[in-house]
Amino acid sequence: MDNRPIGVFDSGLGGLTAVQKLIELLPNEDIIYLGDTGRVPYGGRSRETIIKYARQDIAFLTSFDIKAIVIACGTVSTTAMGEIENDYDLPIAGVVLPAVEKAVKVTKNKRIGLIGTVASINSRAYDRLILERLPDAEIFSAACPLLVPLVENGRINRGDIMIETAVREYLTPIKEQGVDTLILGCTHYPLIGDVIGDFMGGEVSLISPGAETAAFVAELLEKNGISAEKGRIATHRYFVTDSIEGFSSAASLFLRQDVRGEVSKVDLHNF
Amino acid sequence: MDNRPIGVFDSGLGGLTAVQKLIELLPNEDIIYLGDTGRVPYGGRSRETIIKYARQDIAFLTSFDIKAIVIACGTVSTTAMGEIENDYDLPIAGVVLPAVEKAVKVTKNKRIGLIGTVASINSRAYDRLILERLPDAEIFSAACPLLVPLVENGRINRGDIMIETAVREYLTPIKEQGVDTLILGCTHYPLIGDVIGDFMGGEVSLISPGAETAAFVAELLEKNGISAEKGRIATHRYFVTDSIEGFSSAASLFLRQDVRGEVSKVDLHNF
Repeated sequence: MDNRPIGVFDSGLGGLTAVQKLIELLPNEDIIYLGDTGRVPYGGRSRETIIKYARQDIAFLTSFDIKAIVIACGTVSTTAMGEIENDYDLPIAGVVLPAVEKAVKVTKNKRIGLIGTVASINSRAYDRLILERLPDAEIFSAACPLLVPLVENGRINRGDIMIETAVREYLTPIKEQGVDTLILGCTHYPLIGDVIGDFMGGEVSLISPGAETAAFVAELLEKNGISAEKGRIATHRYFVTDSIEGFSSAASLFLRQDVRGEVSKVDLHNF
Repeated sequence: MDNRPIGVFDSGLGGLTAVQKLIELLPNEDIIYLGDTGRVPYGGRSRETIIKYARQDIAFLTSFDIKAIVIACGTVSTTAMGEIENDYDLPIAGVVLPAVEKAVKVTKNKRIGLIGTVASINSRAYDRLILERLPDAEIFSAACPLLVPLVENGRINRGDIMIETAVREYLTPIKEQGVDTLILGCTHYPLIGDVIGDFMGGEVSLISPGAETAAFVAELLEKNGISAEKGRIATHRYFVTDSIEGFSSAASLFLRQDVRGEVSKVDLHNF
């Protein structure tokens, strides 16, 4: 039994899609969330900059007495996690491995599609982990740099010509390869799951890393005997690096519910 | 006569559209350019964060022996310049005033359109300066958060459905007001000048702050007697805060020529 909080971070607010799933699945767990909104997005930056920012994010979270770290950011999970995960004494979960395990479980034709930020795709982290588990899998991937700004500007609805065009352009080469599974390798993408699903067709399984990661974390806590007491009332705290003004409205988009919990601004300069 | 360099900065690489005009107009002037590519974009961030970043950018530039500062960033010019310009002993030029002076000169019906980032539009900096000069002007403005990511992803050509849709949606309310002048209040927008011009119609004057700023700086140097010696060979140095990998290809998009000059990475942490 361990009632210490879980530390979760993302480059911005997209990681709240994973927090939403964590809250659903683990209602007794305290959560401390850090969104680096003062430097978002990470997805187009270089590997060295992403590693530097990730270390600062973790240094902030570990300034609290947390029991586990969740990297709720596709870009950091693919680009920096291998470099940094052994530097900390805490269990760390990223969004890549849970999604990979689900994808290799559900694919039948071993043709797997993958979309993500430029940094995520270039890292080839998904490819490596899939091929370790399924050496004859074929992976078809595409970097989709416009999907994050489109989602952040609310262009998420069926029939919106901009999101429909972007999805069609990015996904046509993947669809043409006859994949039966598509990994949505960025926390923003589940918000356009129906637009992507319409385009890919109902026979293609969409894998949302946020949901898979929440299940993975539940198991990780169980296995390490560090779950919180059942029935306790959990608290959620949110930290951002830009102003907290407007946080609640933006955050509720990703959290799919009103933000309940304290929101504070933090300066990572000294971390 | 003063051969010291001019310091120019922007949140990223868009400010190179102003550098291009500076190089054309002032071929004898040394230029030191800082693009804060590790934290770009500034346009959606809060005023306090933008001011903090701008002070760090200027602290870096003034660590060189420069003779003037050019804020080649619409967001910083509108949001932070009033707060910080008196803190330095150097002449400072932003992109707002030169564009405003041109706009009030060319408008005939005193109906002026303005587009920019969320931070720029919310600052109302253009509005204030226009109304000081032309109290009966009417200003119709729109924040266009998707134009920067679209331009940065190369969606700049006539016939591209995404840029055409975004331009039409953002500009329809402004066009319907019958403006005869439109200020392109962000350094990225001149790259889609033809798409914007097609939509607005040939009778609407488009004002590019980069071009106006270069002319303004030429005058500023002249007036202060700090122009560089005629005929000397100028050097241009470029600094970025993210990796320099890929800088040249991205930079040449905005510079409209190959980058000639040294490119270095800098850490603003200590500024």
